[in-house]
Amino acid sequence: MNTRILFCSRCGGDTQLLLPPDGDVRKRDICTSCGHIHYVNPINVVGTIPVWQGRVLLCQRNIEPRRNCWTLPAGFMEVGESLAEGALRETQEEAGLDCSVGQLFSIIDVVHVAQVHFYYLAEMHSDTVQPGPETVTTRLCTPEEIPWDRLAFRSVTETLQRYFADAASGCVGEQLHTLTIS
Amino acid sequence: MNTRILFCSRCGGDTQLLLPPDGDVRKRDICTSCGHIHYVNPINVVGTIPVWQGRVLLCQRNIEPRRNCWTLPAGFMEVGESLAEGALRETQEEAGLDCSVGQLFSIIDVVHVAQVHFYYLAEMHSDTVQPGPETVTTRLCTPEEIPWDRLAFRSVTETLQRYFADAASGCVGEQLHTLTIS
Repeated sequence: MNTRILFCSRCGGDTQLLLPPDGDVRKRDICTSCGHIHYVNPINVVGTIPVWQGRVLLCQRNIEPRRNCWTLPAGFMEVGESLAEGALRETQEEAGLDCSVGQLFSIIDVVHVAQVHFYYLAEMHSDTVQPGPETVTTRLCTPEEIPWDRLAFRSVTETLQRYFADAASGCVGEQLHTLTIS
Repeated sequence: MNTRILFCSRCGGDTQLLLPPDGDVRKRDICTSCGHIHYVNPINVVGTIPVWQGRVLLCQRNIEPRRNCWTLPAGFMEVGESLAEGALRETQEEAGLDCSVGQLFSIIDVVHVAQVHFYYLAEMHSDTVQPGPETVTTRLCTPEEIPWDRLAFRSVTETLQRYFADAASGCVGEQLHTLTIS
């Protein structure tokens, strides 16, 4: 994963990858002109598991990466919102759902791409959908109807497996699922 | 909160705050030279609640902001680590503890600074500490010994209040605490 900042965001000067003078143990891109230190940090992806009468709503992606593969509605958390607000916004943008966001269901560290994925339970108030431009179509799925070999991301697969296992045991929401994908 | 990127991180060109051509509804800093779109996202702060014989370890900050105020060991999550790995690293860097990181205890959206704070339970294996350069000193505290009016951040106060309430009820770890600070 390339996380270099080649030019200073404040003054446009060249940067150099150096140890900062403050005792930091990691090299950072430091501006050779104004001295600004650029930090790069992991990004949060927030989404939901929208449920209607025991079925989970999936979205077929209309954008890269993984165009045409299936996913839970999710996307990058934005400045100015909470994790749950971001999850609701992404669900509305991608699927056009009327739903309530409930408990946090899974937290998945996706270390190799410097992301953390958060999926919330969401109760759909109707089965009306209005897919946005990033979605080809949507589909409500039982476990048997999930296109397991055409899911877009491993965090989606891991979350769906745990959701349906919990649903089969009648214990959805009793446990937060945390895992790391390296 | 100023989150502008004035110059392109890839080519050093000037940016303009514009709606991207892909249908995005938020303005982004877009390079007028190479067209690169710069996104700014919330950052994760990861830390622990280190416990030794019923007392919680606090660190007195040796850096701004809030120098000399007291905090739980915590800091910015880095690329290449999971949330829990980051929490352990920060605890070792700031307090020099030998400890095991356990369950996630609290998630606090601190929306006005575009941060999400995560505190994990941590079991100390001894009361030996080796404070790092960012820490003046450390202190093991009962609830009565916590310097409540000199805590560095509201997320620390909120986490400690919930920890000691759960400890008094004998239910630490049974509930993940989630809240938003606007």
